[in-house]
Amino acid sequence: MAVKSDSSVQSCDFVLFGTLGDLARRKLLPAMYQLDKAGLLHADTRILGIARKGMPQEEYVAAVKEALSTFLKEPLDEGTWTDFQQRLTFYSTDFTDPAGYAGLKEVLNPNSVMVNYFATPPSIYGDIGRCLQENDLIQPNTRVVLEKPIGHDLASSQVINDQVAAYFEESQIYRIDHYLGKETVQNLVALRFANSLFASKWDNRTIDHVQITVAEEVGIEGRWGYFDKAGQMRDMIQNHLLQVLCLVAMDPPVNLNADSIRDEKVKVLKSLRPINQDNVFENTVRGQYTGGFLKGNTVPGYLDEEGANLDSDTETFVAMRVDIDNWRWAGVPFYLRSGKRMPTKHSEIVVHFKNPPHNLYRDHYRQLPANKLTIRLQPHEGVEIQMMNKVPGLDSSTRLQTTKLDLSFSDTFKNERIADAYERLLLECMLGNQALFVRRDEVEQAWTWCDSIINAWENSNEPPKSYPAGSWGPVASVALITRDNRAWEE
Amino acid sequence: MAVKSDSSVQSCDFVLFGTLGDLARRKLLPAMYQLDKAGLLHADTRILGIARKGMPQEEYVAAVKEALSTFLKEPLDEGTWTDFQQRLTFYSTDFTDPAGYAGLKEVLNPNSVMVNYFATPPSIYGDIGRCLQENDLIQPNTRVVLEKPIGHDLASSQVINDQVAAYFEESQIYRIDHYLGKETVQNLVALRFANSLFASKWDNRTIDHVQITVAEEVGIEGRWGYFDKAGQMRDMIQNHLLQVLCLVAMDPPVNLNADSIRDEKVKVLKSLRPINQDNVFENTVRGQYTGGFLKGNTVPGYLDEEGANLDSDTETFVAMRVDIDNWRWAGVPFYLRSGKRMPTKHSEIVVHFKNPPHNLYRDHYRQLPANKLTIRLQPHEGVEIQMMNKVPGLDSSTRLQTTKLDLSFSDTFKNERIADAYERLLLECMLGNQALFVRRDEVEQAWTWCDSIINAWENSNEPPKSYPAGSWGPVASVALITRDNRAWEE
Repeated sequence: MAVKSDSSVQSCDFVLFGTLGDLARRKLLPAMYQLDKAGLLHADTRILGIARKGMPQEEYVAAVKEALSTFLKEPLDEGTWTDFQQRLTFYSTDFTDPAGYAGLKEVLNPNSVMVNYFATPPSIYGDIGRCLQENDLIQPNTRVVLEKPIGHDLASSQVINDQVAAYFEESQIYRIDHYLGKETVQNLVALRFANSLFASKWDNRTIDHVQITVAEEVGIEGRWGYFDKAGQMRDMIQNHLLQVLCLVAMDPPVNLNADSIRDEKVKVLKSLRPINQDNVFENTVRGQYTGGFLKGNTVPGYLDEEGANLDSDTETFVAMRVDIDNWRWAGVPFYLRSGKRMPTKHSEIVVHFKNPPHNLYRDHYRQLPANKLTIRLQPHEGVEIQMMNKVPGLDSSTRLQTTKLDLSFSDTFKNERIADAYERLLLECMLGNQALFVRRDEVEQAWTWCDSIINAWENSNEPPKSYPAGSWGPVASVALITRDNRAWEE
Repeated sequence: MAVKSDSSVQSCDFVLFGTLGDLARRKLLPAMYQLDKAGLLHADTRILGIARKGMPQEEYVAAVKEALSTFLKEPLDEGTWTDFQQRLTFYSTDFTDPAGYAGLKEVLNPNSVMVNYFATPPSIYGDIGRCLQENDLIQPNTRVVLEKPIGHDLASSQVINDQVAAYFEESQIYRIDHYLGKETVQNLVALRFANSLFASKWDNRTIDHVQITVAEEVGIEGRWGYFDKAGQMRDMIQNHLLQVLCLVAMDPPVNLNADSIRDEKVKVLKSLRPINQDNVFENTVRGQYTGGFLKGNTVPGYLDEEGANLDSDTETFVAMRVDIDNWRWAGVPFYLRSGKRMPTKHSEIVVHFKNPPHNLYRDHYRQLPANKLTIRLQPHEGVEIQMMNKVPGLDSSTRLQTTKLDLSFSDTFKNERIADAYERLLLECMLGNQALFVRRDEVEQAWTWCDSIINAWENSNEPPKSYPAGSWGPVASVALITRDNRAWEE
């Protein structure tokens, strides 16, 4: 997202709860390292790694170095590392014991902004808040970053948000949805509002429908128990796909400030047509993968995975038709699709424009292929416009061809490294800019809408439809869109 | 132009008056050869080369081979040549002597369509017509192709057109403007009418202005006397640039038939706001080059060229603001520019879209760069869209960048040879499709509008402004567009 922010780098104490955990090792420490390498950390910014397990500082530094070596997609730069390790401080405590936080104050730099990252289970967010407050560690400019999942439905998300709200103002809370940190998602706002080619025709007069696909190639990867409680709807649709939908569909914001943008996103969420037991099977398809073949390998089905409960009705695939009941989008369906064990890892937004009002080429094309704007999130982030051009050549008949005007980020901006989403998000948080973070009312509105669908599924007693691993989901998902005389992008 | 045509190849007798001349050798014979090579000539199609000078058939065949070897941009294909030379017949006559045509009938194939190409001075078009008629050689399906210039003003063009009309119906007359045969010009119609991205926003609500540039690097090339009687206005604007303007500006035609398209083009020509002595210096700049430097070489000025008359006021450069007084284009100027001895050979149409109604990026850009659609005619025929994208990277501020989505014909259609304009035009003529040819009322309407400008210049006693060879024209041409807060594409 194109973001207006204060670009001055402040010195921060980045307090990382759960510094030995998977998220910290895979994403957060590498992101901080990259920011350091890019010169985007203030000289006095420090990283306070907090874990329950005690260890000497040297051992922690070694653990961080090991994490960087493992998860950076490039060799560790020795110069950066020399600087980076100076920033590291390890602190051990039980997260839920206020007494354990007593020593923390002495380690903190009074001139730095305290940025707390809760890379912990949400169940202890409140405890950490309480411990920080009891030790007088929460100042007006103290911030807290929350990882998903924030609840598994509206009620549980309210509990967690209430617990955090007991200690932090909404203006201090940064809820992560890492899709908002992706370059092409940030570019969406620029694309829509800085280009009159799109700005002036982004509505139901000119757009036929929109498709948002987030296809994962991976299956469950050893976290069956965790995933089975959630399912694809909670794990992907409720957050990532709805956030992307909001950015595609929102009205122009008053300005690019965080709340102006989030005000518009909430309006979209409020306009989503409810899906409930009356219309759930008309508008959604849920699936669960069975064994199959993927890139030449046999892969097990969801119920064959390690730790699987054979009775599970959890969906690993969702396809849905979403209607936005507002002035701009009346009659323009958004088709959403997300699944595991798809043929390839592939995420994109495709805006299908309407055909010209009259087909001058009807002798050759009963229907002209529509213009499409494709925003690829992965792989190969980029933007593409499909247009019709005359094929050069002497054929006497009018031979048109769909051709693509392509803007690949990695090709076009060769000298620019495509930053990981977490780098952008940590930087924005340290800058105090909430535009790329999810506000409480967004979370709750999204849950309200999703809960209705999940409840309808659960009350129906209809199990998810099976699809073979390596396919694009159950055949019913094809019917969902074919019924409307449209087709999924393949 | 995307053209609807009967694609069946007919057998033709292609009668080439002036077969030893420059146009025939450079363009027409190579074009027929390429059509033959592409398998687009009927087996019985023949080429009857006609010249005043007599020579044996063998000598003519050798002259054609020499012309092909010189002007084809590829080695002569021996297989094609073996076939092609069988098609050649030479016939010698004085073009203005009916008796000389007597033997022609015997050479013609009664089953073929006779296509006469008048690659001769226009002053004898009428004579040739008379000779053909007196020898009973004009049948209902006989066609005649006329080369420019058709007159040097409205009155003289009417004389020529009347002379031809005495022997041929308008439906038999094919007036060449070779710009209409260029691939990207043909693609213009497809681009406009097969793409809703443009179809629905091609008017004064969405387009700010249009620029059409045809820049030549060459100077006078030994034809000073000829050019000096015409000038750049008659030589380029009256035909090529106005034809391109018509295709950019016309309303959607009823269908793609020749007269439907030409009806719309004439409507545009009729809507051109007149330029006369009251407003000529507000809306036009004419220039004449002086000596200068071009690609590292010193080149002479127009008045220093061989054969120059030092008093000449003939323009070698024209820049103009053209207003189209109709519903679609009210308030949208078309800036036209054409000159000799420009820094580079470069022809393009650039459609500048309006800015989004509100600038969300005003903290960073007082004015956002506009979206542009560029249609390159030469070199490197292609289509390009300029858009704004966020620059990938971690800069905290909103950094946008104009980026280009590019469709280069030569890159995209690698296996397709880009045909020369004459190949397309000769093919269309043999197919009996007039869509790419200029109708009489178009010619006359264009002359009416241009005459008014030329007369205003002549009556003003103001000489053309000088510009050094190798520059983009007189500084006054910059002022012409800058005054409107716009700038020429460079």
